[in-house]
Amino acid sequence: MSNPSLLILPGDGIGPEVMTEVKRIIDWFGAKRDLAFDVEEDLVGGCAYDKHGTPLHDDTMAKALQVDAVLLGAVGGPKYDNLDFSVKPERGLLRLRKEMDLYSNLRPAQCFDALADFSSLKKDIVAGLDIMIVRELTSGVYFGEPRGIFEEGNERVGINTQRYTESEIDRVARSAFELARRRNNKVCSMEKANVMESGILWREVVQKVRDTDYPDVELTHMYADNGAMQLVRAPKQFDVIVTDNLFGDILSDCAAMLTGSLGMLPSASLGAPNADGRPKALYEPVHGSAPDIAGQGKANPIACILSFAMALRYSFDQGDEAARLEAAVEKVLADGVRTADLLGEEGVTPVSTTGMGDAILAAL
Amino acid sequence: MSNPSLLILPGDGIGPEVMTEVKRIIDWFGAKRDLAFDVEEDLVGGCAYDKHGTPLHDDTMAKALQVDAVLLGAVGGPKYDNLDFSVKPERGLLRLRKEMDLYSNLRPAQCFDALADFSSLKKDIVAGLDIMIVRELTSGVYFGEPRGIFEEGNERVGINTQRYTESEIDRVARSAFELARRRNNKVCSMEKANVMESGILWREVVQKVRDTDYPDVELTHMYADNGAMQLVRAPKQFDVIVTDNLFGDILSDCAAMLTGSLGMLPSASLGAPNADGRPKALYEPVHGSAPDIAGQGKANPIACILSFAMALRYSFDQGDEAARLEAAVEKVLADGVRTADLLGEEGVTPVSTTGMGDAILAAL
Ligand SMILES: CC(C)[C@H](C(=O)O)[C@@H](O)C(=O)O
Ligand SMILES: CC(C)[C@H](C(=O)O)[C@@H](O)C(=O)O
Repeated sequence: MSNPSLLILPGDGIGPEVMTEVKRIIDWFGAKRDLAFDVEEDLVGGCAYDKHGTPLHDDTMAKALQVDAVLLGAVGGPKYDNLDFSVKPERGLLRLRKEMDLYSNLRPAQCFDALADFSSLKKDIVAGLDIMIVRELTSGVYFGEPRGIFEEGNERVGINTQRYTESEIDRVARSAFELARRRNNKVCSMEKANVMESGILWREVVQKVRDTDYPDVELTHMYADNGAMQLVRAPKQFDVIVTDNLFGDILSDCAAMLTGSLGMLPSASLGAPNADGRPKALYEPVHGSAPDIAGQGKANPIACILSFAMALRYSFDQGDEAARLEAAVEKVLADGVRTADLLGEEGVTPVSTTGMGDAILAAL
Repeated sequence: MSNPSLLILPGDGIGPEVMTEVKRIIDWFGAKRDLAFDVEEDLVGGCAYDKHGTPLHDDTMAKALQVDAVLLGAVGGPKYDNLDFSVKPERGLLRLRKEMDLYSNLRPAQCFDALADFSSLKKDIVAGLDIMIVRELTSGVYFGEPRGIFEEGNERVGINTQRYTESEIDRVARSAFELARRRNNKVCSMEKANVMESGILWREVVQKVRDTDYPDVELTHMYADNGAMQLVRAPKQFDVIVTDNLFGDILSDCAAMLTGSLGMLPSASLGAPNADGRPKALYEPVHGSAPDIAGQGKANPIACILSFAMALRYSFDQGDEAARLEAAVEKVLADGVRTADLLGEEGVTPVSTTGMGDAILAAL
C-alpha cells in the first residue's frame, strides 16, 4: 500500500518558515513512528501570483483535489495589496475552499495554561478555555451571486449576496453535532434571525437536524451580536459554536484573540468523505502571514505544527499520534520555551522559529 | 417660540422603567434650567403589537417624523419570539431607522473609571477607554433586496443582499470624519474588502472623502475580522471606527462589552439635518429589553439617561447641559451608588432603578 499523501503549500510571509518546522516533524513521524507521507510542495497566494500570474495555478488545484490532505501556511502581504480583486492572494485560498468543497471549518479556541497571562482578559475568565467554533466555509456572502460593483443611475453600487440552502446548513450542522458528541455535548448556533431571512432558515434547519438526529445534544440559539458580547463576557459558557461563513470569520477571530496566543491556534477545513472514508481536508494556522516579521526567525511555528496534529486526527485516524504531538508542544511550553510572540515573563527561554522546532522534536 | 418636541417610546421589558427616570430628568431641565420640552409618549415593539397588531403604528411613525427627537427604551421579549418576521418587535425599530433615514449610528464605548473592574478585560487594557463606533444604519444587508426564503429545486434557500451605493457610504464617512475632528482626529474604517466587492467600494469611497475633504484626519483601514481581534487585544488604539450596518452591529456590541458595563452605554442615530439645522434623531440605550429583570426595579437607567444627554448635545445644541447631566452621573458613580448590575465591590450603596434616578436628580 502506498503512503498517504500530503500537499504542502507554505504560501507567503512567515508561511515558509513555520512550514519548515512542520516538515521536520513530518519527517520524524516517518522515521520514528513508521508513519511516512508522500509529500509534495507547491505555491499558493502572492508567491504563486509572482510566478504564474494567478494566486492558485490549475495544476496546484488539481493536486489539492488528489491528495489526502493539504497543509497551508499563510497567504498575503503588502506587496499584493493593490492587485486586482480577482488575483489577490486570498482568492487562492478561497478557490481551494470552494473547489475542495470544505464546508466545515473547525477553529478551536483553547487557552494553554502556561500562556493564560498573555490574554488581555482576566485570567479566571480564560484559564482552561476550550471552545470549538464550526464555521461554514463554502457558501454565504463569500460566494453568493450576484456580486460586484455596478453602475446605477449616476453612481456605483457594491453588491454581495448572502445565500444558504437547506442542504448547506444541514451538513455543517451535522458536523457540529458530531463534534459536540465527542466533547461536552453542547452546541450554540449563531445568526441574525431577527433581521435576516437567511438567519431564520439557518435557525430552523439547525434545530431540525438536532431534533431529528441528535436529540442527545443540547442546542441553543443566539444572535451573532450577542454572541460577540458573550464571547468577551464569559467565553467558558460555550462548548461548540456553529455559525455561517461571515459571522464565523469574525467570531472565530474574536474567540482566538481571547486566548492571547494566536501563534498557537490551528484550524481544519473538512469536506465530504471520499470513497476511502477520508474527508477532503485542508489544515492551516489561524494566524496570518505576518509580513512585518517574515524572514527573521521570529515566527511561532506551533499553530502550524498543531494544524498537522489535527491532520493526523481528522484525516489519518491517528488520534494517538496527534495527542503525542500535542503533548510534546505542551511540555515545551511548560518548560518555558518561548518564541518572540510569547516573551514577557521571567525565567523563560527565548528561542527562534527553528529553536522551537528543535525543542518540540526533542520532546517527541 | 414653541418648545422643542420629544417623542418618547418606552417599548418593552425594562424600557418603561428606565424611561420613567429619564422623564423625571427631562422635567428637572424644564423646571430648573428653563429647558422645557413638549413631550408625547407612544408605543413601539411588542407592546405596540399587542395593541395594534403591528410593532409600529403608522400614526406613531408619522409623529416620529414630526418631532425634533425620539427617545426609545428597548424592544422585544420572549412573548414575541414566535411572531411572524414581519411583525416582530425589532421591525418597529428597523422601520423607524429606515423611514427617518437615520444613517449614522453613534455608539460610544467608554469605560467609566469607577467601573473598570467590571470588565472581563484586564484593567490596564480598558481603563480610560473612549472610542466611538459610527455604524451605518439604513442600508447594507439589513435592508437590501432581494431577500426572503425561496423554493429552489426541491429545497429552500435563504437570501439577503448586502448593498451599498457610493452616496450611502459617502454620507456616513463624513459623519465619522466630523466626529473625529472633535475628538482625536483618527478614523479606522472596517470592512472585508479582501472577500466582498461591497467592501472594496466602501474602502475606496471612505478614502476619497478623506482625501478630498478631511485631509487633516488620519484614516486607516482594517478587515473586520482583524478589527474584532484588535478590539479585544488593544481597544485603546482606536478613536473613531466607521463601519457598515452588520459589521457595526457585531463590532459595537463587542466594544460595548469590553467596558463591562452595558447598562451605562447610550447611542444616537442621526439623519440628515432638517430646515432648522437639527438632524432627524433617535436616542436609545445600547442594552436590550432584559425581560428577565423587567418590572423588578433592578434595571440601570443610566444608559437611557445618557442617551438623553446625547439628545441635548446633538439635537438641541445644549452641550453644556449635556455635560452637566454627564457630570451628575459620574458623581453618583464616584459616590458608590450602584444598581443591581454593578454590585460586587465593597462599600457601595445598592439602589433600585428609582433610587438611581433620585441620586442623579440630587447630584444635578
Ligand atoms: C484571508 C481571508 C480570505 C480569510 C477569510 O476571510 O476567510 C481569513 O480571514 C480567514 O479567516 O481564514
Ligand atoms: C434589535 C436588533 C434589530 C438591533 C440590530 O440588529 O440592529 C440591535 O441588535 C441593535 O444593535 O440595535
